[in-house]
Amino acid sequence: MAETRIRFGILGCAEIARKVSRAMLLSPNTTISAVGSRSLEKATAFASENRFPASTKVYGSYDGVLDDPDVDAFYIPLPTSLHLHWAVLAAEKKKHVLLEKPVALNVGELDAILAACESSGVQFMDATMWMHHPRTVSMKQFLSDEQRFGQLKSVHSTFTYVGEGDFLKNDIRVNPNLDSLGALGDTGWYSIRAILWANDYELPMTVTAFPDPEYNESGVILSCGATLNWNKDGKVATFYCSFLSNLCMDIIALGTKGNFRVHDFALPFNEKVGPFYAVSNSKWAELSLGCIPEPSEFKIGTDLPQEALMVHEFARLVEGIRGGEAKPETKWPVISRKTQLVVDAVVASIKKGFVPIEVVY
Amino acid sequence: MAETRIRFGILGCAEIARKVSRAMLLSPNTTISAVGSRSLEKATAFASENRFPASTKVYGSYDGVLDDPDVDAFYIPLPTSLHLHWAVLAAEKKKHVLLEKPVALNVGELDAILAACESSGVQFMDATMWMHHPRTVSMKQFLSDEQRFGQLKSVHSTFTYVGEGDFLKNDIRVNPNLDSLGALGDTGWYSIRAILWANDYELPMTVTAFPDPEYNESGVILSCGATLNWNKDGKVATFYCSFLSNLCMDIIALGTKGNFRVHDFALPFNEKVGPFYAVSNSKWAELSLGCIPEPSEFKIGTDLPQEALMVHEFARLVEGIRGGEAKPETKWPVISRKTQLVVDAVVASIKKGFVPIEVVY
Repeated sequence: MAETRIRFGILGCAEIARKVSRAMLLSPNTTISAVGSRSLEKATAFASENRFPASTKVYGSYDGVLDDPDVDAFYIPLPTSLHLHWAVLAAEKKKHVLLEKPVALNVGELDAILAACESSGVQFMDATMWMHHPRTVSMKQFLSDEQRFGQLKSVHSTFTYVGEGDFLKNDIRVNPNLDSLGALGDTGWYSIRAILWANDYELPMTVTAFPDPEYNESGVILSCGATLNWNKDGKVATFYCSFLSNLCMDIIALGTKGNFRVHDFALPFNEKVGPFYAVSNSKWAELSLGCIPEPSEFKIGTDLPQEALMVHEFARLVEGIRGGEAKPETKWPVISRKTQLVVDAVVASIKKGFVPIEVVY
Repeated sequence: MAETRIRFGILGCAEIARKVSRAMLLSPNTTISAVGSRSLEKATAFASENRFPASTKVYGSYDGVLDDPDVDAFYIPLPTSLHLHWAVLAAEKKKHVLLEKPVALNVGELDAILAACESSGVQFMDATMWMHHPRTVSMKQFLSDEQRFGQLKSVHSTFTYVGEGDFLKNDIRVNPNLDSLGALGDTGWYSIRAILWANDYELPMTVTAFPDPEYNESGVILSCGATLNWNKDGKVATFYCSFLSNLCMDIIALGTKGNFRVHDFALPFNEKVGPFYAVSNSKWAELSLGCIPEPSEFKIGTDLPQEALMVHEFARLVEGIRGGEAKPETKWPVISRKTQLVVDAVVASIKKGFVPIEVVY
């Protein structure tokens, strides 16, 4: 059935593209048709090192891939500052767009990308892999369970890691001309998405950045956080993101009847199993000598890694559109835009001295 | 050696006093000499139900216990609004004071209590039990380890539980005349203490309450939270406390080289073993297909429950003072006062519209 596989073109040879191209080869409904870099040599080496099919065409420019007629969809792992240009071009060429996060430097840029996709009738999806892990479905079932979880009251998410080697000086993610959102656009993106996900994508009313973010010499954010507030039933959320703290990828969601914790939400420690820890209807033991029950571990297995499930779902949507059976799924651009709006609100709150910023869709 | 045991008088028959009086009977250096309630019948039943020694004297008033000559120290589990009056009286009678938390309605009241204790040369300690668990020592060793934890960057603590039955209407902890600090004074106290503990008791520069706390009909806080900021190296902390979310007692502390999590910090699920989970020097696996190592579980056993270790330590200090070998340990009143200062700052921030409040010792 290879002829029905969705054919990806890959724009750029970023480190993350190694992982996602592996996913394209793992997923049964996708293949890699072309890859382009500013250097033909680099693209050739990339295709070889990552065992691309012999049929994959290799280009020494992004434009070359973009013009390849045998590409159905583009995966764009370029630095954020280049997303507007290349994602719009891809959409204008009627190609579907799987775009790395953060999707844009601000919502204005994203809106231009989304308008181009909508105008061309192509699918847009951001590459937030953990959305596609079956664990995410299981956690959502728990969150939605009136008896086991009740009403959501608060969510707290942390995503930090320490960039290795000269990361803090030379990595794309801390370069003001390439990824000026820094840690907020990288790990903060995931935590903000987690908070929105837990809230059924209801945007907060206000976002208030924590005082005292950290920056590198170029003014790129290395650590920051914020409080999100819905002005409804006391519901609150916080997140903290950083390139300066040891790896931590937590969500704690608290409900009136239960709660759950996950410690590797964005990227499971183990590719095959995603655990989470949940408890319901806790009580103090007699004399408050303890509390029962203790949280239980729930292990959610998956045959394909989450990034392969992501490209599989993207390709499934593309296949439906190609066959004329479906229109682009609007859920994905909508939640990208909501995530970006919160990112933008954090930036605005920091710029204005950590005041609350209203968020309006 | 019974004659060298420190003899406690207990003021009031609160539910928590059942647990702490059990601790006094478990600890090898303490005993219960007297208990008083506003009702003699209630005090008699309390002594009987909790298997107090036959020698324990029972009083139908707090004044009766206060005047008992066979008492070395008072444990005061009365509602917070009564602390100022009774703790000062106890200190003025040269009795040592083990005071339930929250220690006072505000730092002005606490200062009056501490001044009375200092003037009389008696020991003051608040009844924050988890400070005395050996796990707390182990976690602090991890936090202080340059190689395993590095520099502290952020702390996030959550302590919530759902009050059972008519708790939200009739419990002392939500009565504006008895415990007007509500959830902030109850569970928030523990989380604030955890944050200060992790920061070697360095007070934050500012405290900013989260918008939208919840209140009961009498205006007592049922849920709230805050961001704490040191204006130094981007260090930040958050806490969230509530009577409206299922039981959760977490600390996550993030360092430059490691982090740790604990899920029952204030009150271990199991009386005999306190676990925590720590990881150091995490790395992404090849292709970021996972991350290694996974956090390890550290189990810290204890023969005596933490509340017995608390009264043991309190009695050890009292014994030293009685023997003329030592002066009162100032660490305990100092950290009570710092905790109260942060509680007060949260209240002030809420009252002033969630603005940052400076904290000054």
